[in-house]
Amino acid sequence: MIIIGLDPALGTTGWGVIKRDGNRISHIANGGVTTNPKLPLASRLLDLDGQLAEILSKFRPDYVAVEEVFVNKNPQSTLKLAQARGVVILGAARTGTPVVEYAARLVKKSIVGKGNAKKEQISAMLNILLPGVHVAGEDAADALAVAITHAHHI
Amino acid sequence: MIIIGLDPALGTTGWGVIKRDGNRISHIANGGVTTNPKLPLASRLLDLDGQLAEILSKFRPDYVAVEEVFVNKNPQSTLKLAQARGVVILGAARTGTPVVEYAARLVKKSIVGKGNAKKEQISAMLNILLPGVHVAGEDAADALAVAITHAHHI
Repeated sequence: MIIIGLDPALGTTGWGVIKRDGNRISHIANGGVTTNPKLPLASRLLDLDGQLAEILSKFRPDYVAVEEVFVNKNPQSTLKLAQARGVVILGAARTGTPVVEYAARLVKKSIVGKGNAKKEQISAMLNILLPGVHVAGEDAADALAVAITHAHHI
Repeated sequence: MIIIGLDPALGTTGWGVIKRDGNRISHIANGGVTTNPKLPLASRLLDLDGQLAEILSKFRPDYVAVEEVFVNKNPQSTLKLAQARGVVILGAARTGTPVVEYAARLVKKSIVGKGNAKKEQISAMLNILLPGVHVAGEDAADALAVAITHAHHI
């Protein structure tokens, strides 16, 4: 079973693809999709949608796993994030792939064992769970973490 | 020139189509697109996208006008709204139609003459600007208001 985790954002949307074989989890690919902040919102959303469609069509996941929305203290950041998230979830739904959502606390608990784990602890555990894998960045790490969470919970 | 105004929301997205002929503005159609709150987010966004695509393909507007985001005091409401807004703007961008955004204050000022006008004042002015038109609801009224704002500013 192929699972893609997504960490949506208008700037960089992290993605991470894993394979679950019984209890075994293996890494397939990870990366980040970026959009040009100089372009208008409509162009950026279109670009995000197009790049994501390519990734979904390349890896044909059985599940798309996304973190539940983190309500940022900065309302404008939350708005940008949520607009990108809407586009990302729509893109997944259009392919007919089931979309599953996990709370950030549950992701942290699944990966590190603690709901309030820090980013560095997530990274360290990813190195153990997916040894030798080069993780493209923080967004890709978050995406892999939510994919692994789904692999554990399914 | 055909302008569609959109007032995006996850529950009911208002839409209003007008025609601008020189200084003359006439009403073409208005309504609301609703999604089923009992369905998962992914299904609702897919439904919203599909219904909106039908409306855009029916009226083939030259411009899509949307209000700039209103940051709600309730973060969860803002998130829902923004996710729907991302989908709506993407849908417009996919058709290649230019998307223009107007601040709520500017819309009110354009229609009523005051940036802090109330909803009832907007409604009353719509009755004058588009006489005899049945407006489907508050969301459709907001959508018509932003469409007229664009007609005034273009």
